[in-house]
Amino acid sequence: MRIALAQLDYHIGNFAENTGSIVLAIENARQSGAELVVFSELSVCGYPPLDLLERKDFIQQCIDEIHKIARVCDSIGVIIGGPSFNNASEGKMLFNSAYFLYGGEIKQIINKSLLPTYDIFDEYRYFEPNRVFTLLPFKNKKIALTICEDLWDDQPVENEFARSRLYTRHPLEELCKLDPDLVINIAASPFSHTRMDLKKGIFIDKAKKHNLPVIYVNQVGAQTQLIFEGGSMAIDCKGRIIAQLDFFSPEIKIVDTDELDGSHKKDISKPKDRIGMVHDALVTGIKGYFRKTNFSKAVLGLSGGIDSAITLVLAARALGKDNVHAILMPSGFSSGHSVSDSVELAKNLGISYDIIKIEDLFQLFNQSLSPLFEGCAFDITEENLQSRIRCVLLMAFSNKFGHILLNTSNKSEAAVGYGTLYGDMSGGLSVLGDVYKTDVFLLAKYINAKTDVIPRNILLKPPSAELRPDQKDSDSLPEYTVLDRVLEEYIEHQKTNEEIVAMGFEKSLVSRIIRLVNTNEYKRYQTPPILRISSKAFGGGRRLPLVAKY
Amino acid sequence: MRIALAQLDYHIGNFAENTGSIVLAIENARQSGAELVVFSELSVCGYPPLDLLERKDFIQQCIDEIHKIARVCDSIGVIIGGPSFNNASEGKMLFNSAYFLYGGEIKQIINKSLLPTYDIFDEYRYFEPNRVFTLLPFKNKKIALTICEDLWDDQPVENEFARSRLYTRHPLEELCKLDPDLVINIAASPFSHTRMDLKKGIFIDKAKKHNLPVIYVNQVGAQTQLIFEGGSMAIDCKGRIIAQLDFFSPEIKIVDTDELDGSHKKDISKPKDRIGMVHDALVTGIKGYFRKTNFSKAVLGLSGGIDSAITLVLAARALGKDNVHAILMPSGFSSGHSVSDSVELAKNLGISYDIIKIEDLFQLFNQSLSPLFEGCAFDITEENLQSRIRCVLLMAFSNKFGHILLNTSNKSEAAVGYGTLYGDMSGGLSVLGDVYKTDVFLLAKYINAKTDVIPRNILLKPPSAELRPDQKDSDSLPEYTVLDRVLEEYIEHQKTNEEIVAMGFEKSLVSRIIRLVNTNEYKRYQTPPILRISSKAFGGGRRLPLVAKY
Repeated sequence: MRIALAQLDYHIGNFAENTGSIVLAIENARQSGAELVVFSELSVCGYPPLDLLERKDFIQQCIDEIHKIARVCDSIGVIIGGPSFNNASEGKMLFNSAYFLYGGEIKQIINKSLLPTYDIFDEYRYFEPNRVFTLLPFKNKKIALTICEDLWDDQPVENEFARSRLYTRHPLEELCKLDPDLVINIAASPFSHTRMDLKKGIFIDKAKKHNLPVIYVNQVGAQTQLIFEGGSMAIDCKGRIIAQLDFFSPEIKIVDTDELDGSHKKDISKPKDRIGMVHDALVTGIKGYFRKTNFSKAVLGLSGGIDSAITLVLAARALGKDNVHAILMPSGFSSGHSVSDSVELAKNLGISYDIIKIEDLFQLFNQSLSPLFEGCAFDITEENLQSRIRCVLLMAFSNKFGHILLNTSNKSEAAVGYGTLYGDMSGGLSVLGDVYKTDVFLLAKYINAKTDVIPRNILLKPPSAELRPDQKDSDSLPEYTVLDRVLEEYIEHQKTNEEIVAMGFEKSLVSRIIRLVNTNEYKRYQTPPILRISSKAFGGGRRLPLVAKY
Repeated sequence: MRIALAQLDYHIGNFAENTGSIVLAIENARQSGAELVVFSELSVCGYPPLDLLERKDFIQQCIDEIHKIARVCDSIGVIIGGPSFNNASEGKMLFNSAYFLYGGEIKQIINKSLLPTYDIFDEYRYFEPNRVFTLLPFKNKKIALTICEDLWDDQPVENEFARSRLYTRHPLEELCKLDPDLVINIAASPFSHTRMDLKKGIFIDKAKKHNLPVIYVNQVGAQTQLIFEGGSMAIDCKGRIIAQLDFFSPEIKIVDTDELDGSHKKDISKPKDRIGMVHDALVTGIKGYFRKTNFSKAVLGLSGGIDSAITLVLAARALGKDNVHAILMPSGFSSGHSVSDSVELAKNLGISYDIIKIEDLFQLFNQSLSPLFEGCAFDITEENLQSRIRCVLLMAFSNKFGHILLNTSNKSEAAVGYGTLYGDMSGGLSVLGDVYKTDVFLLAKYINAKTDVIPRNILLKPPSAELRPDQKDSDSLPEYTVLDRVLEEYIEHQKTNEEIVAMGFEKSLVSRIIRLVNTNEYKRYQTPPILRISSKAFGGGRRLPLVAKY
């Protein structure tokens, strides 16, 4: 059987666009001789629809669109994801379903059994788990049709204090009792640079264990914070990857199930460079956010430091150089090079820029506040003041011309609260908020691999906020190579203080870093959405009580 | 049997404090002749601990504290809430449990069956549901011990497109097969002014249906956004309330089960005033946030409008007048009365204040931006600019003196995006963000019931942001009486556009309001935590994709 893997970029709730591209893909697949086209999880509405699933009109429109799509599926089978109603009188109202369309109608509905409810996933908020297992018969094949997490009943975990077997049901075991010929998995599986091999391994292991071909179809593109890398695959019954679709771009590829019997080809998978994938993910994330919110232009503050430099490069690559504007806002504490380096970078990229000095504004604020601050020394207040003046200027530009302000903070800073709320922590989208500083340096190296896009001076100078005379990040923070390792053990791996110390880090340093992370939860509560590239980003995937004393 | 209902205010993760007050309550109860003391859900750590439940050291400390508490329970029984490990090899790692302590040790652990995973609740993120039902035998009684949602298997819903029977299990039905004498429910049930009667009804209905006394113990106090009203109850087997604990304050009360046999007393419940409860909830919310984050002082911008006036009154009542500071920041567009009305209010309350004129700062920003804005007309940019200048001043005060900035926006504004990001939408805590403007007016009436605490002029003037000449809210927004009703139907009741129009509202107006709500999701993403007083507050209880086109 010839199966088309349709890896598309959906826009949540944009039914006209989604149905349009789905129907077009069906038409293309038909013309290329496909007998079955497979779309990804909740593709009719885009994943994750979140609380739109609580709106009657939204669900009704999902179902209406599926009927509309069914009408073009006369002689071709289609598997498509969408919500369906739970007809039982008890339990959640909806299922997360795979619809099988053929002969112009909905022929069968298969529901998802394992509902991820951890990290960024909230599926049990909306859906009832399936408890009844049936195969999908089509042409001469019996298909074990599964939805994303259904194959993740036994998953490797990064964090020791976590479980690999989170569910008491095992959908594929149940389905294999019914003797299928083939496994299809429709998914919406977001990118994480720490889980690329793990994800591939899940499907390869299932294929090998059950001696069955596995076809995996993921969505591509970004939905606010979440970036979906695509990378859909066809795996033969021996666990070899026979076909793999592009990363970060839509693609339709046809696979013949005859090729998946274990006798035909060799594994075509090739390793991907981690930082290259992060780079592409971030460009995809920016592109997706702007396209889907119907904006085209970005503005950002260029400080002369590495974070804003990388953000500018990524924005230019995502939106085009003519759609990005930089504003340089030196203060009396800015180093001599901060303006010239920034100008050089903007010129390298062909980006327009303005320069606004903030010294006079800073002085006038100090003067306005002087009756209140009489006798008080210069402290963090005045540092924050400069950062907030810059935010006011950037937001004025944003308001006047309709540019979205890009936030340039990195994950190391966000973790320890090294940033100013309503200052440099502002913006419509945080580009680097899930990238540790040590990875920011690697991104710079990746970007500069062929030519010095980013002036070397920006990369070589010691990181500094330049908010008081001769300030360096290292005055307040440990070296980033140490800081990032401790942060990763604490945030990603959820290690305890004692466990991190046992790894060889200094006790007082570990305590100080953990305290900074915990006491700055309130700042991160108000940060912009952060493009997620790791397994634990700040935002909806990490929920902590602000008032906790722990 | 004499049972002490221990309604305490816990602090998430503050084990020393929680264990201290639990042990003290046990001692008090023992001295008053109680045989059993009942604490609320997850009381050992405070509810909701959120992702702290993913930390090994946190869980271990919960269990250690329970052992510590058990050691003081030699001759008195104690029921206390805490997490416990799921010893099965599959499923989530934890249960949400009720521990029964007696004779100096943990005698029995009963696990929660129904795990709310909707609105602000995320329990399936952490816990495995219980599937095995047993009674707790103690002295001459067999107790059906349940945890919060376990009694909510059939709950009235405000929203037509929602289910009253969200679960396929019915814990009390199962437990009643074992012939209990008494139902105990340990809870962490947050306040909602729309669900006061509904909550009471849940317990009364269960008592009547099974002809059993019901003892309900709730926690009290605030945890970031969530406010717990307490109001613990003892209900006799005929569904009459025989004892009810205070709202919004800790209390321990002893009830004899002999009084619950249906023959003794009459129902003591009295109706509570809705706005009075909202007032007390907000004061509790402010008090809790400050105490638990270890801050004592608040600052806010006083505009001469009703929202900031009410916020000031509530803050003064929560923190004491000496702990609140007001800053008045008139611009060239401020009405003559805005300063004098604010001064009068501050004087009525005995609150210190400062006045900082923002006209010069506004002009200097305009001048700094003039090379970029050449030829551009005054628009929303300049309105936002004034609001952001005020935020910079307030945050400077906050940074210099350690006051938390209180946000003064109301729910109507937040809903339609009538506010400035990094301007009046900033702050450490939003006091009125879940209070519609029409309820803000009722709060003012409630506060002024005896004397004019808030100057009448503040209440009588038409609402205005005063950011351009002669501006009124009604220039941009429908009258609040109409706006709020449409918002409530859309946000709280999840009605569709068509359904709201069918209720008699003008079609284009409904479409405009819904569009404003949807297109301003990005602003609300970055707002401070909002004290929740309704069944659907902005924040974690309402999760929408920013990029959605719907």
